[in-house]
Amino acid sequence: MIILGVDPGIAECGYGIIHVKGSKRKCLVCGVLRTYSTQTPTERLKEIYTGMINLIEEFSPDTAAIESLFFSKNTKTAMQVGQAKGVIMLALAHSHLDVFEYTPLQVKQGVCGYGSASKDQVQKMVQRILNLSKIPKPNDAADALAVSLCHSQSLQIKTKLHNECGGWK
Amino acid sequence: MIILGVDPGIAECGYGIIHVKGSKRKCLVCGVLRTYSTQTPTERLKEIYTGMINLIEEFSPDTAAIESLFFSKNTKTAMQVGQAKGVIMLALAHSHLDVFEYTPLQVKQGVCGYGSASKDQVQKMVQRILNLSKIPKPNDAADALAVSLCHSQSLQIKTKLHNECGGWK
Repeated sequence: MIILGVDPGIAECGYGIIHVKGSKRKCLVCGVLRTYSTQTPTERLKEIYTGMINLIEEFSPDTAAIESLFFSKNTKTAMQVGQAKGVIMLALAHSHLDVFEYTPLQVKQGVCGYGSASKDQVQKMVQRILNLSKIPKPNDAADALAVSLCHSQSLQIKTKLHNECGGWK
Repeated sequence: MIILGVDPGIAECGYGIIHVKGSKRKCLVCGVLRTYSTQTPTERLKEIYTGMINLIEEFSPDTAAIESLFFSKNTKTAMQVGQAKGVIMLALAHSHLDVFEYTPLQVKQGVCGYGSASKDQVQKMVQRILNLSKIPKPNDAADALAVSLCHSQSLQIKTKLHNECGGWK
C-alpha cells in the first residue's frame, strides 16, 4: 500500500509518500511544495493544487492523510493555511482519494506512542522507522512523513480490529 | 461587463452576478451554494468548487471579486472558511479569471459611500442600485451582490483615473 501524508502550508507544504508492506515501511519520496509571497494568493493556491495532482499521478497513492491544524492565536495565518488545505483536499478528492485527518496529538501518538513527544523526538522516530540515513529536511517534509506513518499505524489497527471482530462472529 | 461577486463560506457560499453597462447595473443571478454538516469536509469543498465552475460556465463573467474575511476570535471557523475560499479562488483561477479581493470595510465604502454602514443599510443599497423588488435573500446572496457592486465601482474609478492620466500626457 502506498500512503501520501501532507502537512499543509501556503509557503511550504510538506509531503511524504511511503510504501507499506506488512510491518515494513519505506520512504518513496518527501519534500515541500514551495510558493513565494511575491506570487498572488491565487497563483500560490494553483501551484499547490497542481503540485499535489502531479505527485499523485507520479506515485499513485492508495490513500492519503492530512494534518488538522488548530491555531490558538493568529487567525490570518489560519485563514491562509485553510486556503492551502482546501485546495489540497480538493486535489485528493479529484484524484478519488479518501482523505483522512489527524490532529498533531494523534500524529505524535501514532509515531512515538505518546502525545507529549517533542517535534525533535517525532522526527528522530520518523528517521528510525523509515531507516533513513538522516532526518528529512525541511521540517515540513519530516512532518508529512510522520502524518503518513500515523495513517499507516491507524489503518493497521483498524484492519487488526476488523479481523478480530470477524473471528468472533 | 459581467461581474461575479462571492461571499465565501462553507455552509452557505454567497454569489451574485451583475451586468454593468455605463452607469446601469443589473442583477443576473444571486443565491448561495449550500453544503451540509452531514457531508464530509472534502465533499463540501468539491461541491463548492463544482458549483462555482458551473456558475462561471453559465454566466461567463469577465472579472470576479471575493470578500476578504478577518476573524478576530474563532480560528476553527477561520480555517473552514479559508478552505472554502481556497477552492473558490482555485475555481476562478482555473476559469482564467483574475481574482480581486475587498475587505468588508471596502465593500461598505464601495456600496454605501461610508465604511460604518450597517449590514442592513448595505442590503437596502444593493436593492436600490440594482432596482430589485425586495432585498435579496439569504443574506449571503445580498452580501455577494454587494461585493460585485463594490468591484464595479472600483473598476469604474480605475478606468476614470486611467483616462484622466492619459489626458495629461
